[in-house]
Amino acid sequence: MSGPRTPGFAWRVLGQDANARAGVLTTPHGDVPTPTFMPVGTQGSVKTLAPAEVAATGARIVLGNTYHLWLRPGPELIDSLGGLHGFTRWPHAMLTDSGGFQAFSMADRRSVSEDGFVFRSHLDGSRRALSPEEAMRVQGLLGADIAMQLDVCPPGGAPRDEVERAVAQTTRWASRCLASRREGQAVFGIVQGGTHVDLRRAHADELGALPFDGLALGGFSVGEPVESMHAALPEVAPHLDPERPRYLMGVGTPRDLLIAIGAGVDMFDCVLPTRNARNGQALTRRGPLVIKQARYRDDPRPIDPECGCGACRGGYSRAYLRHLFLAREILVLRLLSEHNLWLYGEIVAGARAAIVERRYESYSRGWLEGLSEGQ
Amino acid sequence: MSGPRTPGFAWRVLGQDANARAGVLTTPHGDVPTPTFMPVGTQGSVKTLAPAEVAATGARIVLGNTYHLWLRPGPELIDSLGGLHGFTRWPHAMLTDSGGFQAFSMADRRSVSEDGFVFRSHLDGSRRALSPEEAMRVQGLLGADIAMQLDVCPPGGAPRDEVERAVAQTTRWASRCLASRREGQAVFGIVQGGTHVDLRRAHADELGALPFDGLALGGFSVGEPVESMHAALPEVAPHLDPERPRYLMGVGTPRDLLIAIGAGVDMFDCVLPTRNARNGQALTRRGPLVIKQARYRDDPRPIDPECGCGACRGGYSRAYLRHLFLAREILVLRLLSEHNLWLYGEIVAGARAAIVERRYESYSRGWLEGLSEGQ
Repeated sequence: MSGPRTPGFAWRVLGQDANARAGVLTTPHGDVPTPTFMPVGTQGSVKTLAPAEVAATGARIVLGNTYHLWLRPGPELIDSLGGLHGFTRWPHAMLTDSGGFQAFSMADRRSVSEDGFVFRSHLDGSRRALSPEEAMRVQGLLGADIAMQLDVCPPGGAPRDEVERAVAQTTRWASRCLASRREGQAVFGIVQGGTHVDLRRAHADELGALPFDGLALGGFSVGEPVESMHAALPEVAPHLDPERPRYLMGVGTPRDLLIAIGAGVDMFDCVLPTRNARNGQALTRRGPLVIKQARYRDDPRPIDPECGCGACRGGYSRAYLRHLFLAREILVLRLLSEHNLWLYGEIVAGARAAIVERRYESYSRGWLEGLSEGQ
Repeated sequence: MSGPRTPGFAWRVLGQDANARAGVLTTPHGDVPTPTFMPVGTQGSVKTLAPAEVAATGARIVLGNTYHLWLRPGPELIDSLGGLHGFTRWPHAMLTDSGGFQAFSMADRRSVSEDGFVFRSHLDGSRRALSPEEAMRVQGLLGADIAMQLDVCPPGGAPRDEVERAVAQTTRWASRCLASRREGQAVFGIVQGGTHVDLRRAHADELGALPFDGLALGGFSVGEPVESMHAALPEVAPHLDPERPRYLMGVGTPRDLLIAIGAGVDMFDCVLPTRNARNGQALTRRGPLVIKQARYRDDPRPIDPECGCGACRGGYSRAYLRHLFLAREILVLRLLSEHNLWLYGEIVAGARAAIVERRYESYSRGWLEGLSEGQ
């Protein structure tokens, strides 16, 4: 299958270098250059940052978490206030997950059946049922540019027969999600299969036969050894329909991104850069910098002299950032969040240029060497 | 006495309307139009906000708390990193308090003697001694444009003889502070006397005879009924040397500012706008708005349609801000902090214009009526 499936939505390749691709994702809220990293706005806010600050890092698409927004403030309310775009004032593209992953990982007393997930809200204990149809209804009300199908995501290391059942269930839900999608909203399918390359490829073919606007890899970075993911990606990602964008869900570290882009992945999301920022970890081209360490007590340098983010350009010293972190001042959480997303923005922007210029291998190797240098 | 006392520091009147004055405070870090409100940067950061956001509210001077910065990260470290200006990247004027008030209110096992305060740090229990000379040494290292003398501040409702002893002690410390000041740093004296107008006036005369660059009113808003302060201010503030700026410490609400400006006060500081913001209270020209209230659940309006702050101009609805507050998202603390400081900036900017145009009485009355309207 090829060409646009949903009006206003398209993806085209601008350049390819071995398996790595550079492209542009067109959405009703603007173009998104790929490879792209989607900062996570779990509850309608990329934590600590305002929309303009997120966009300044180069991000042109963010992810919202359906599970959280479904429970609070509720999709009907968000719909009545202009959808997630109007509600949060994020002007660029947006994607929502299905809610299934978090319903299963965060909620109490959850169970899964042919009809979806049943669980108790972690906020008020209320009983909730998330079927494929409900996942699409809620995402339709949230109104992101891209919705994700409901899927079953087994934990890393699950037995093969459990993974096979998850794959089969995900395929049955795929058709139900497509049948109940909101008009005008793009929908991505989710390929499962753990680290079993044969299951992954078969599932990619099954879902590729359906009119999804993109294909995601779910069930990576869910507890399996990171080397297993790195080994599986080059076997699996190139097998996903090359005419649709490929999205690796919930991944990852800078190293993960560089390896996955090399394997042909176009889109990523992860809480790592913003969560680690709030824990005082600045990510740099020379690896992580833990700001509370005593070695930075009187260090007048910015986090990274080569970085162009507001924290580094703003002249804030490591000594000042360390002080703010020890004093529990919110400003440092903002500055580190902005810095970390900036690094991710630089990685994907540089990757796009390198792919078009057919030098991705050396680009990636340069980054990987720097990342392992240490502070 | 008249004319500048410290090189690079001056204050001149641009207009007067009854007791209210509009002027300009000249400092080594730029001019500060008065009346002015100083946002409080307790630990080297106006909580939740970046310097440019603070300046956007109209603030051209902020206050740093010597007690906190003395204990952590320490004045020597701050001095080595360019003083508070270099450390925090605030480019405009800055004032530090003496540390005495917080040493007495926050520390453990504190005592006061002729030589100053002795106390245990609230952070690590270490024994600290804050003499007039140490207060000036620490403030000299912090390097703000304006330092405050060490004073004794009795609680509201203290017996008259305790207030008299505090006044006398403050006067003796005044001379010691001036004798140990850092060259080039302006120093303000602090008039005590509680709500006793005769004590206040006598103390104002005593301190006015010393070469302070400005005179402050300490010991207001320390537990006494607010009506007592409102009644005392017009009896006391005009009695302070009119050729020097007058600073009402730790005050206050929008209503307090309007009344004190009418009594001839030029400078204010208070944690109220930023602290109340973090508690979910937006201050508006129609009084406070408690963002978590259910009435704002689906309210599409900004906090204040007349406000020009980033939160109100940015299109964030009350419903969205309420959601963020209930979800404990940091962004709402920033937006409310910016909004509240913006309101304070508007009050003092409007007061300056009204004073020059000799219509302060009606300006103040208009605000006071609006503030009591309610949401």
